[in-house]
Amino acid sequence: MSSVKNPLILRQLFHKETSTYTYLLACGNTKEAVLIDPVLDCVERDLKLLQELGVHLVYGMNTHVHADHITGTGKLKEALPDCKSVLGSKSGARADVYVAQDENVKFGNLALECRSTPGHTNGCTTYVLHEHEMAFTGDALLIRGCGRTDFQQGSPSVLFESVHSQIFSLPKHYKLYPAHDYKGVIFHIILLLLFLSMWHFFFPGFSVTTVEEELAHNTRLTKTKEEFIKIMDNLNLPYPKRLDESLPANLMCGVTDPVPS
Amino acid sequence: MSSVKNPLILRQLFHKETSTYTYLLACGNTKEAVLIDPVLDCVERDLKLLQELGVHLVYGMNTHVHADHITGTGKLKEALPDCKSVLGSKSGARADVYVAQDENVKFGNLALECRSTPGHTNGCTTYVLHEHEMAFTGDALLIRGCGRTDFQQGSPSVLFESVHSQIFSLPKHYKLYPAHDYKGVIFHIILLLLFLSMWHFFFPGFSVTTVEEELAHNTRLTKTKEEFIKIMDNLNLPYPKRLDESLPANLMCGVTDPVPS
Repeated sequence: MSSVKNPLILRQLFHKETSTYTYLLACGNTKEAVLIDPVLDCVERDLKLLQELGVHLVYGMNTHVHADHITGTGKLKEALPDCKSVLGSKSGARADVYVAQDENVKFGNLALECRSTPGHTNGCTTYVLHEHEMAFTGDALLIRGCGRTDFQQGSPSVLFESVHSQIFSLPKHYKLYPAHDYKGVIFHIILLLLFLSMWHFFFPGFSVTTVEEELAHNTRLTKTKEEFIKIMDNLNLPYPKRLDESLPANLMCGVTDPVPS
Repeated sequence: MSSVKNPLILRQLFHKETSTYTYLLACGNTKEAVLIDPVLDCVERDLKLLQELGVHLVYGMNTHVHADHITGTGKLKEALPDCKSVLGSKSGARADVYVAQDENVKFGNLALECRSTPGHTNGCTTYVLHEHEMAFTGDALLIRGCGRTDFQQGSPSVLFESVHSQIFSLPKHYKLYPAHDYKGVIFHIILLLLFLSMWHFFFPGFSVTTVEEELAHNTRLTKTKEEFIKIMDNLNLPYPKRLDESLPANLMCGVTDPVPS
C-alpha cells in the first residue's frame, strides 16, 4: 500500500449563534465533497464555498438529529439535487441514506467509517477518516466535555460506553473534531453571559483536540462510569431554546425537504 | 533533504467577543511552542492548554499592534518568565525581540519566516511556516477581505503591494490563517447584529483559506490597485470601540508588562 495519502480539502466552518461546527471535506483528486452537520442559516455560505472551491457535494451528513439548530441538509438538497442526506440508522429521522456500524461513506478516493456512538441520542454516529487520522464526533464527545444526556433518548451510561469503545479506542494521535464549541451549557444562558463578558468560560474557543488529550483532560469522560453518570444526572440543564422548532424539522431532514408522496 | 516533516502541533483558538484567532504552534519533537496573537482575556485558557499539551512557550508573538483587543503577551510573560515577546521591527511598540524581513523565529526544529506586510499598520508581519505550507497573515489578509487602512499608519496602496508581493507570491496551495473572522466591520455594530440574527453576514464562520482561494475570490484584493484604493478609502468605518484601551496597552506589550527601568 502506498504511503502517499489521497489529498483532503478540509474546512471547519462555524455558526456563531449556536456555536456549531460544520465540516466540509472534499477529495482533492475527484473534488467530490461531503458536509458534516450543515446549518440551515448557513446554507448560502456553504453553497458559495462549494462553488468557489470547485467541489461537488455528494452527501449532506448529520452526526445526529440536532436539538439546537435546524440542519441545512434539506435546503442543500433543494439547491443540489444530486446530493443525498445521510443519518445514522437508529436516528428515527428521515434520510436518503442510513448508515450503521462499520459502514463506509465514500467521497472520491476517500471514505468515512461510521461508528455508532449513542448516548446523546440513539442515532449518534461518529465519522472516522482513517486515511487522514481524524474523526468527527458530533455531540458524543466535545472538547473537554460531551453532549447532554437528559432528553432525546439520552443515557449517560450508554454515552460512556460509546465514547470509550468507539472514540477513545482510536489511535491516540487521531484528531477529533466536535459538533460544537461549548461545554454543555445552553444558548439562552450564553446570550446573557455575552454581556457579562464571560464568553470565554463557556465557549473556550477550541477547534480541535486529539484522543490523547481527551483521555487525559476531558472533565467528564476521564471519570469512572459511576462518577460520570452522577455528573450527567445532576447537570439540571434548561430546555434547549430552539428544540421545539429544531427537532420536528430535523426529523424531516430540514425544513425545506419535500414531503414524500 | 528528507521528505519527512518535523511534526507540528497546531491549535486554532478563538476569542468570540472580538472574533480573534490565536494560534498555538509547537514542535512535536522538542515541544517548544509559540503563540501568535494571544488575547489578554484568554491567557488562562492558553496557559492551561500549554500545560495540558505538555509544551513550553518560548515566544508570544504578535502579527501587529492590535487596535481591537489587548494582547496577552505581557500576562503570558508574567506567568512564564522564559517566554519572550516578538513584534515586527517597524511596529513602534515594545517587545523583547524585533523581527525584520526574511528573519526566522525558531521553535524547536521548526521556523517561522517573517515577511513584512505593512498597510494595515507599519509593523504588520506575516509569519510563514514553509515546512508545513502555511502562513499566519494577521490583519493584512483576512478570508475574502483585509484589515482596514484608515488609521494607525494605514495605507491601502501599501497594503495592496504587501499582500501581492509577500502573500499572494507564496505557493498556491499554502494555507492562510488570518487574525480574525470578519470582513472589516467593527465590534459594536456586530453586537447589535447579534440580536438581529445577522451574525453570519459579517462573521462568515471561516477558519482557513489558501493562496489560490484568495487570488480567485478575495472581494477586495482581486481588484486592480486603483479600485482597491477606492474601496478602502470609502469604507467609512466607525472608530474601533476598544482602541482607546487597546492601543496604549499593546504598545507596551499588554497591560501587565513591567515598565522598563
